[in-house]
Order: sequence, then C-alpha cells, then structure tokens
Amino acid sequence: MIAGSGGAVEDSPIEKSLALTRLYQPIVEQMKALRDHLHDEFASSEPFVNELLEHLAKFRGKQIRPACVFLAGKCFGETHSDHIRCAAVVELIHTATLVHDDLLDQADIRRRVDTVHSRYGDRAAILLGDIIYARGFVISTEVEGAARQLAECTREICIGEMLQVGSAGDLDLSEEQYFQIIHRKTAILYGLSCRLGATLSGASDEQADALERFGILLGTAFQIADDALDLVGDQEQVGKSLGTDLVNGKMTLPLILLRDRLDGERRESLMQLLEAAAAGQSDHAAHAKLLKWFEQEGILERVQQRASELIDGALEALRDASGPGPARERLEELARFVVRREL
Amino acid sequence: MIAGSGGAVEDSPIEKSLALTRLYQPIVEQMKALRDHLHDEFASSEPFVNELLEHLAKFRGKQIRPACVFLAGKCFGETHSDHIRCAAVVELIHTATLVHDDLLDQADIRRRVDTVHSRYGDRAAILLGDIIYARGFVISTEVEGAARQLAECTREICIGEMLQVGSAGDLDLSEEQYFQIIHRKTAILYGLSCRLGATLSGASDEQADALERFGILLGTAFQIADDALDLVGDQEQVGKSLGTDLVNGKMTLPLILLRDRLDGERRESLMQLLEAAAAGQSDHAAHAKLLKWFEQEGILERVQQRASELIDGALEALRDASGPGPARERLEELARFVVRREL
Repeated sequence: MIAGSGGAVEDSPIEKSLALTRLYQPIVEQMKALRDHLHDEFASSEPFVNELLEHLAKFRGKQIRPACVFLAGKCFGETHSDHIRCAAVVELIHTATLVHDDLLDQADIRRRVDTVHSRYGDRAAILLGDIIYARGFVISTEVEGAARQLAECTREICIGEMLQVGSAGDLDLSEEQYFQIIHRKTAILYGLSCRLGATLSGASDEQADALERFGILLGTAFQIADDALDLVGDQEQVGKSLGTDLVNGKMTLPLILLRDRLDGERRESLMQLLEAAAAGQSDHAAHAKLLKWFEQEGILERVQQRASELIDGALEALRDASGPGPARERLEELARFVVRREL
Repeated sequence: MIAGSGGAVEDSPIEKSLALTRLYQPIVEQMKALRDHLHDEFASSEPFVNELLEHLAKFRGKQIRPACVFLAGKCFGETHSDHIRCAAVVELIHTATLVHDDLLDQADIRRRVDTVHSRYGDRAAILLGDIIYARGFVISTEVEGAARQLAECTREICIGEMLQVGSAGDLDLSEEQYFQIIHRKTAILYGLSCRLGATLSGASDEQADALERFGILLGTAFQIADDALDLVGDQEQVGKSLGTDLVNGKMTLPLILLRDRLDGERRESLMQLLEAAAAGQSDHAAHAKLLKWFEQEGILERVQQRASELIDGALEALRDASGPGPARERLEELARFVVRREL
C-alpha cells in the first residue's frame, strides 16, 4: 500500500490490469453481463441525462463491490440474474455516493477524468446522484428480500458521510470515532455485497454472516488504504485529486496516530499545520514536514499493520464459511490486493 | 391564486389554517398518525443528524401529498397502516427534493425558516436529502407493491428537475417543454399519492387510474400557481424566497405566455430583461416593468384560466371514479384551494 515517506509505490497500470484480470477470471461473464445491464439501464434516458451518464461511465472503476457479489455467490453455488441485479444496485449506490462525494470534497479529478460537478456544475451533480440512487432502488425491488437491506445500507452510508461532515475540523477526533465513520460510510456496502451474493447462491444464515464480516473487514482496510493514499499518494499515479482530506479538515488514521504520538511542541506544531491546511494555507513545506513526521514515527508502517490485521480477520471469516475453490481464492487475493495499493 | 398586477392576494394565516382544518377534517387521526410515524423515524438518528432533522421539521408544510393518500383511500373504503407508511414515504420524497431544490435554487428562506444549506452548509444539505430519500425507500419496502412505483416516481422527479436545470437560461423554452418538466418534477408524485391511497383501500384499476389522473392534474395546476407566485407573490406572505426562477433563468408559464404575445421591440426588451435577471442584474424597475406587461397582456388571467381548466379536468376524473361523500368533497375543495393560492 504505502512505502515509507517517499510516497506510494504503485504498480504500473499494466500490472494492475493483469492482476485484476486474474482476480476476475472466474466471473468474466458475470462482469460483462453487469456492464450490459448498466448500459441498457442508462441508454433509455433523456438526452441531457444521458450525456451526463456517458460522462460518468468514463470513471468506471474496478467494480470491486459487484465482483464481491459474484465471487461470494460462486463460493456457495451458481450465480444467476438476481446476482447481476444486486451487483448493479451496489455499483449504482457506490457511483451515486461518489458523485455527491466529489461535490462535497470539491474534488475535480476522479480516475483521470473531470468530475461531474466540475464539468456540468453542482446542480447537475446533485440531481445525477439522486437519479442514480433512485435507479438503484428501482432495480433492487426486483430482487426479493434485497430492497430493504440495500435502502438501509444506503441510509447508513449517508449517515456515515454526514458524521464525517459534522466532525470536519475536529482535530481531536478519536480513533474509535474514525472507525465508526468508515464502518458506515464504506465497510457496510462491501459487507452487504458479500452477504447478498452468498445468500442468493443458497448460503446458510451463518455463512452469509461470515461473508458479511469478510466484506466489512475488507472494506474497512480498503478505506484505511484510501485515506493513507490521500495523504502520501502521487496524484498522477492514483488518478484522482489528492490531499482533499487535509483541506477539508478530515482526521484520518495516519493523522490520528501521529497526533497521539507527538507531544509538547511538536504536537502543537502539527495542530497548527492541520488548522492552516483546513483554512487553505498549506504548501509543499508543510506537506514535507508531515511526511517527515510520518517517517520518524513509523506511522505508515503502523497503518499498514492495522490494515493487515483487518485483512487477516477477513480471511479467517472467509475460510470458516467456505471450502477451498477458485472463487474463495480470488476473494482472498482481492483482500490482499486491497491493502497492497489503491484499487 | 393571483389578482392582477397588484401582486398576490393571500388569505391570512388564520383563514388558511381554518380552511385546512376543514379540508383535513375526515383524516385528522391519519394525519396525526403520520406525524407520529415521522417523528419516531427521526428520533432514532445520530445527534448531529437529529439536529438537522429537527431543524427541518420547522418547515413542515401543509402535507398535501399525504392528505391525498388518505383522502383518496377514504373515497373507496377504510385506511390502514399501509396508508400511513405510503403517506410518510411521499412526504419524505417531497422533503428530500425540497432540501436539494433549495440548495439548487440557492433559496435561503422556506416557510419562514432558514433553509438547511443556508444554516448548515451545502454538504449537510446534500447528505440530509440523501438520508431522507433512503429512509423513504426503507419504509416503502414495507408496503407490498409500492416500493417500485415510489422509486420510479422519484427517478422521474429528479429527471424532471434535471431537465429544468438543463434548460436554464433557454429563453425559447416552449409551453410544451414547460408542461413536460412540471409533469415530471411535480405532478406525478401527486398522481402516485392518489393512486396508492385508492389502491390500498381496494379501488379497482380503473378507479386507481382516475385518481392518478386527478392527482396529476391537481399537481400540474399547483405547480403553475407556485411558479406564478414566484414572479408576482409577496415574500412576507408566501413565506419563502421568491424571484429565484428569474435569477436562475427558469422560463415559467407567465413568462412563456408573455414572450409569445409580445413582438418587435417589446419582445426584444423582455428578452434583455430576462437575460439581465439571469445574470443577476435585476432591480425593482425591471420587476415593475414585467408586472406592467403582465397586466397589459392579461397574462395572469390567462395563467389562472389554464390552472382552472386543469382543475375542471381533475374534478371530472374524480367524479367518474368515486361516488359522493365527505372524502370526495374534501378532495374537490383541495383542488379548488390549490389554484386559489399557494398552499
């Protein structure tokens, strides 16, 4: 994930792509069916809405959440059309949160493309997010028993985001509060993706619980990695606006761990640096100082350690629930992949 | 609704309140149950989210959409707990659109209270809207057969809003395009409120269709009245920010009718006035000029006429579907009330 204060060591795009091709190998057909499904959903829209959705399609990420739906299903049996619908819904929910998030963060680049609000304005971004949520809910009603869970999960995600907004500028945010926020805003959607995939393939309640736990731990580790990259990543390599958390006064794990290790003058100096950054007064020197502190205090190793422990827990939950096989192997690799670098 | 160029003639708050008390008399218990239901929904939230929701509760409007659910139900039989759930959902969807709308319009006052974004910021307003939508969808899954219709309706509402955003500044917007936009952004939620209420009380498909038609026509007339008030109403009496449509370059019915009647120099002068207003360069003199044109060309009478025709159609649909009785009478009064002034 992160390699000391020198910045992130990212695999090349080709290596990344090869790794993903391998990861998704058992679910190639399902991922294609998902893309077709999403494409058909969007093609019927009004021209202006369609233009926005087509712009949005350029951001297509690694679609890890849909992959979780399919791979979790494959651990317990065959996948069918309801898996595709659920995969579409989790991807739509995630996409809608991204559109609103980028607006909230005033981020201008995502996956190397202008974000919706930076090209079409804030109004369009708000409504596009709303349309995507609503489309997701429409599809969710086609899968028996899934709609309520997906709607509740969405509400939790938004509450998690709201708690983060409410705690912006709170430099005393505790580690516990940080984990509560990322649990809601990120982890539970991974958890539900895995649960629904498993349940739809006939997993028992116990197995579904274990898969949900796998997803939650995976999602938590993912968010930790993502937050660390925002501080120490290279914008060119990561492909999205970075440093937004500092500007928005968001205390993420590296900053919390650093704050709790520094004392006296150095702590005071850190707090001033964070306040200045949140007030838009940050520069290269301040950022270099932060990276130096991270190195001196071994912060990135600690963050890495925390993420690895979560992944260990995830793998344990997975092995308890499912016998060995290609789908389980790919979920295991996915879990390791997530903390190795940003997906 | 509107009384010539002198501005709106609004009934006093007491008269308004008395009229509503009478309108809602057959459904007093149901409206109370709705308020309790919404209160319980909100009480369980996180403190910060709860603070925002409590602020939002101050905006509580006339709750016409829930009243439509109950009154439409009462036309065909008893109402029960599913009516309360559906009423809660339509009110939540409406509330969420308001929170996002006020942000889109940069309106600072709604029902005499600061809007959410003006007090808590844009981030909080976006997320609060998202949370309210999601809460609505959660409740909708408890009513068999309603979730999909409500999600599709929400998507249509947002697409309607998006089309309006996309046409901002388009001074050539046709009357037909205007009606398409308000159909989606406003009318269909009234239509669905009436349909669901009727269906849940055992109405036939034909009766449900007629009630939906009633709601759509009522909602269309309501939006026409609302748009006219934005141009000629008195902010103190109406209780929300007015004149936002002009600033946002929204062509509404009075402006479209006026544009299509003026020619030559006067038309050119109107276009310049509208362009200046959309660029933030509007003043009392410009507004007075607009009101004078409205008077000279009898625009408000024409708008009133259009709204009245819609209400006549609504009443016809209602009478075709339902026999006489207190609930039908109240729906009839509600329809007349809507075009008499802003609710």
